[in-house]
Amino acid sequence: MPVDDCVFCAIVRGEAEASVPYADDQVMAIMDIAPVTPGHLLVIPRVHAVGLDDLDEDTGAHIWRIGHRMARALRRSGLRCDGVNVFLADGAAAFQEIFHVHLHVFPRYEGDGFRIEATWATRERSLLDREAQAIRAVLPG
Amino acid sequence: MPVDDCVFCAIVRGEAEASVPYADDQVMAIMDIAPVTPGHLLVIPRVHAVGLDDLDEDTGAHIWRIGHRMARALRRSGLRCDGVNVFLADGAAAFQEIFHVHLHVFPRYEGDGFRIEATWATRERSLLDREAQAIRAVLPG
Ligand SMILES: [Zn+2]
Ligand SMILES: [Zn+2]
Repeated sequence: MPVDDCVFCAIVRGEAEASVPYADDQVMAIMDIAPVTPGHLLVIPRVHAVGLDDLDEDTGAHIWRIGHRMARALRRSGLRCDGVNVFLADGAAAFQEIFHVHLHVFPRYEGDGFRIEATWATRERSLLDREAQAIRAVLPG
Repeated sequence: MPVDDCVFCAIVRGEAEASVPYADDQVMAIMDIAPVTPGHLLVIPRVHAVGLDDLDEDTGAHIWRIGHRMARALRRSGLRCDGVNVFLADGAAAFQEIFHVHLHVFPRYEGDGFRIEATWATRERSLLDREAQAIRAVLPG
């Protein structure tokens, strides 16, 4: 169900402005109004879901399928695009800012100003095995 | 087809070590050996594909489906996880380092050291409309 104070639901209802490279009965692609690079778009489901936990798997797979198709299109669009990032932020702790699930797809090129920082360090196999086991233990089925 | 000098193909063949929370006939999930946070995993297709351009849509959708399931599992695993990021780097310009397509899924929490930098600025509607049109023009079908 659409949610009254959700900007993406307002776009889905046609009540807020958007630039729309693609739409079907399940999802819309809309241009991000504050892009990382020109061509930055978001794939959103028509149905309101906050994040990955309340999004059904089939809708999620379709969001991805269209994101994949958009990534390929960006490389053929004439927009500057030497690579593509696909990014999803699930939860405020993961930098989600609009609480209607959305998949970012954006072009990349040398000098585009996008940077990632993290403290990567090689992790012991025993720890990786333990973490794999903790995840495996809670998988459905 | 597997590729001889590809580390992910070696894992798929069982010739290189990996910690594996999930596997099926199309994909494997493996723990990243240099995680952003504990629990950071990669979903990889068994078939070698460099990136989104040479990956078929159905395999892509299955990678996503399992990534989605893994994101949900991370939140239930007991590992620290207040949010989840899903990230894919397609091409060297987008920070791809291993040229066998892989979907990152990793837990997030306050103070985890992961940061994104970009120069977001609100973009004029006329430009967004033009970019949407450029993308729409090259979509299949
Ligand atoms: Zn909404
Ligand atoms: Zn490979």
